Amino acid sequence: MSKDRAIPHNFEDEQLESVFVGRRDGQARPTVILIPTVMGVTNLEIGFGRQLVELGYNGFVADLFGKEFRGAPRDTMFGELNRLKSDRAALRRRMLHVLELARGLDEVKADQIVVAGYCFGGMCALDLARSGVNIAAAVSFHGLFDPPGLPDEKITAKVVAFHGWDDPMVPPEKVVALGNELTRAGSDWQIHAYGHVGHGFTNPHASELRIDGVAYNALAAERSWTSFINLLEELFG
Amino acid sequence: MSKDRAIPHNFEDEQLESVFVGRRDGQARPTVILIPTVMGVTNLEIGFGRQLVELGYNGFVADLFGKEFRGAPRDTMFGELNRLKSDRAALRRRMLHVLELARGLDEVKADQIVVAGYCFGGMCALDLARSGVNIAAAVSFHGLFDPPGLPDEKITAKVVAFHGWDDPMVPPEKVVALGNELTRAGSDWQIHAYGHVGHGFTNPHASELRIDGVAYNALAAERSWTSFINLLEELFG
Repeated sequence: MSKDRAIPHNFEDEQLESVFVGRRDGQARPTVILIPTVMGVTNLEIGFGRQLVELGYNGFVADLFGKEFRGAPRDTMFGELNRLKSDRAALRRRMLHVLELARGLDEVKADQIVVAGYCFGGMCALDLARSGVNIAAAVSFHGLFDPPGLPDEKITAKVVAFHGWDDPMVPPEKVVALGNELTRAGSDWQIHAYGHVGHGFTNPHASELRIDGVAYNALAAERSWTSFINLLEELFG
Repeated sequence: MSKDRAIPHNFEDEQLESVFVGRRDGQARPTVILIPTVMGVTNLEIGFGRQLVELGYNGFVADLFGKEFRGAPRDTMFGELNRLKSDRAALRRRMLHVLELARGLDEVKADQIVVAGYCFGGMCALDLARSGVNIAAAVSFHGLFDPPGLPDEKITAKVVAFHGWDDPMVPPEKVVALGNELTRAGSDWQIHAYGHVGHGFTNPHASELRIDGVAYNALAAERSWTSFINLLEELFG
């Protein structure tokens, strides 16, 4: 029912390759831009995209790291993550580039775009909302909450963060700080916190990263996905 | 489709009158015990019960204050609230009494009971979970989080708290404290926090209380209700 289409694109000097997942009829639909974890584009995010297609949306799995890093080993990818994370202004430009790319596709309703990210990608989704750009919503699944240290903008996007309370990368004080930051920025926001849940809870292969506090949690994965679909229905249903 | 039935009962010296809302067929179903706000049993909670009946559950609207206080003025009710809140061990016994009463009804599946409360009633629902008693879940809508100061028990119930971030009675440090308390107690818990939302957000008449930070919020009311129904489906669906 769905088809995947590789979308090559360039950001500054880098060659990236994102993946569009949609129906064959080419009709314009609400679209979720999915921002992967530190491991880049994998079958996990493409699978999430296919689930969205079943529900009447498009998925657009964004490559932030570059085509050459597809399937690269963990340590290489963490090196790339640190590179991207070290310049949040540049990361914001990268995210705006991805947004404009997706927005330009015929199958994408330009005013019905949600950006949803995982781990590092969750931070990227929040950063896009923080830019003040006009998107329907930014969604973080076990994302990093660290503010970008850039001038405050009014956030027009709805923001939802699904968060594992035992996430060692995001202790409670960062949850409170995010709530206060989003309040100041005027965003219509929600944070759903889950007890006894760590980082990476949507990823059945999370424990393969062998990092303390990083683990799949089927119940939290299901609860966050259900709430995410509720949000899409609230926005577009 | 639904019928309401007054349930007179006594707790210690007091005459209470709760309201059972269910279908006329008398079949046993999963049941939600609804614990009202400081204002006691009103048409608001009975209406929530009727919505639950439409979805295949029973509602049981618990009277904690006494039949004589039905429709009493605000100041009287706050006096009663302070009386009940001043002895949390007695409040726990009162909640256990209500639970056993509901559990004894023919229409109630004894092992499929959720207790959901509003404002003060949210605290009562949490207190029942804190007793360690066997219920499927305890749910707080804009409830008070203050711990009861009683010996810790292992919480077997799932706990969900729907919380307005701007609730003046429950600042962020109490949200963090609840998360940490529920984690220590072993509960499978969730806290859903909503930005720009105050206390009493499910109640269309909340502003009539004329208390700063207490106001209806249609979006938060709808989001919390949808998530509540998701929980019931997770438990009984």
